[in-house]
Amino acid sequence: RCHHPAAEMLDVPFPPFSIFLGLLGFLCVALVSAWCQYWRGGFSWDGSTQTFNWHPVLMVTGMLVLYGAAALVYRLPLTWSGPKLPWKVLHGGLALAAFILAVLGLAAVFSFHNHQGTPNMYSLHSWLGLVTVLLFSCQVSVLGTPPAPQTPLLLILTPFSLQWVAGFGAFLLPWAPAWLRAFYKPIHVFFGSTILMLSVASCVSGINEKLFFSLKNGTTSYKLLPPEAIFANILGLLILLFGVLVLGALARPSWKRPDPDSPDARQVLGTLLGAKL
Amino acid sequence: RCHHPAAEMLDVPFPPFSIFLGLLGFLCVALVSAWCQYWRGGFSWDGSTQTFNWHPVLMVTGMLVLYGAAALVYRLPLTWSGPKLPWKVLHGGLALAAFILAVLGLAAVFSFHNHQGTPNMYSLHSWLGLVTVLLFSCQVSVLGTPPAPQTPLLLILTPFSLQWVAGFGAFLLPWAPAWLRAFYKPIHVFFGSTILMLSVASCVSGINEKLFFSLKNGTTSYKLLPPEAIFANILGLLILLFGVLVLGALARPSWKRPDPDSPDARQVLGTLLGAKL
Repeated sequence: RCHHPAAEMLDVPFPPFSIFLGLLGFLCVALVSAWCQYWRGGFSWDGSTQTFNWHPVLMVTGMLVLYGAAALVYRLPLTWSGPKLPWKVLHGGLALAAFILAVLGLAAVFSFHNHQGTPNMYSLHSWLGLVTVLLFSCQVSVLGTPPAPQTPLLLILTPFSLQWVAGFGAFLLPWAPAWLRAFYKPIHVFFGSTILMLSVASCVSGINEKLFFSLKNGTTSYKLLPPEAIFANILGLLILLFGVLVLGALARPSWKRPDPDSPDARQVLGTLLGAKL
Repeated sequence: RCHHPAAEMLDVPFPPFSIFLGLLGFLCVALVSAWCQYWRGGFSWDGSTQTFNWHPVLMVTGMLVLYGAAALVYRLPLTWSGPKLPWKVLHGGLALAAFILAVLGLAAVFSFHNHQGTPNMYSLHSWLGLVTVLLFSCQVSVLGTPPAPQTPLLLILTPFSLQWVAGFGAFLLPWAPAWLRAFYKPIHVFFGSTILMLSVASCVSGINEKLFFSLKNGTTSYKLLPPEAIFANILGLLILLFGVLVLGALARPSWKRPDPDSPDARQVLGTLLGAKL
């Protein structure tokens, strides 16, 4: 690590950054909800476009904001000492909440398509979104029901667990052997960032696609940049900013939980012991 | 760094990985060219849709593949010993080539829009793409010409240098002070990954948008997933895979050029000296 005084000017501590990030995430959720409420006719669950409107709100809240919060739990210095289990439970709980919202968000768009007789899963946005949720999926329907062709949602729930169940099995179950954790941890971390990147690309392509669908005619054509288009384009850029900041925070070496063997970690432990004496 | 035997199973060396990545990048360029040649009517520079067709080819080649190659130069162990200058020149040269292709790619789409009377810069894809190229832009037109409203391309060339010129000034000019390099390096590295992420999101939203524009009628509607749609959707997923692998390779600690102060670096130097004796 570079300890040059000029480089240290950039060394913002994580906690104030996380407050800023939380506000930005809240703003993304507020703006996507406002877009759907004010310009797209609000919300319902009857297969109409108001059902579709749950899709962007649930995906942004789940796959972007809650997912980002889950990913950053271990960047809080608070989590570096004391028992790790409560933080693991928080990390897994936030990820599970994100996953549940993502499944509801997919249910909204499939229900809308099925009611309108529109095919499911043809656009690149839908393929990309499905890859994202598949990578993140947990084995909810291991218990049995074979997937029926009418309910593509089941297809999403059936595939083998990837990020969530594998993470649960390796890091939360006490009998997982140390070699498995050591082997799986870099994979879990790599796919964690990858899924977030795919989420962001899915959100952006989805907003772009929705604006082309909705803003077709006359003076509200997307081409003429009506207020709704400017609003939703800015939302897309804020979603990107949120994603880039979460990924940047995850990659930043000085914000990582110190390795228990490193001199830094011993220093933290030493400081803690010193304070207790 | 974790040296657990199970974790070491994942320790592929960078050179074979880079060959795989090179093949994948070549495949992306070949597929985007084949799409435009076979389904979209080929290439020309007369303001027609054949002019537009240069846009995806030049952007994928420049902002994705050449840009990715530039970003990964210092991951080759070959670059870790001996004089650094030739590698800096290679890194800057690849980035400059990427930038030139990106500018030509923007010229293609602006020329197409202007000939067709379509407004420029309204969709989220175009905003995002512009942010990406702006972040990467170099100060080409410092010399003078004020931007004319008819030629939005100039807008892209005028703004202050960001990634390229700043990188050139700080890392290639011999009189840049050490504190400036130390201060700017983490910023350059962060924006390097960020720009690639934005490029990938731009490519995906652009392919999605182009398919909605082009596949509108009858049996070749995007909804019905004609062969062109499947082909271009797969292209989109391969572009994503390329981007994720480059970003993963950049983030991987064991592939980074060792810090000159670390014991690893002294070992490399020691080995080299030993071999010379």
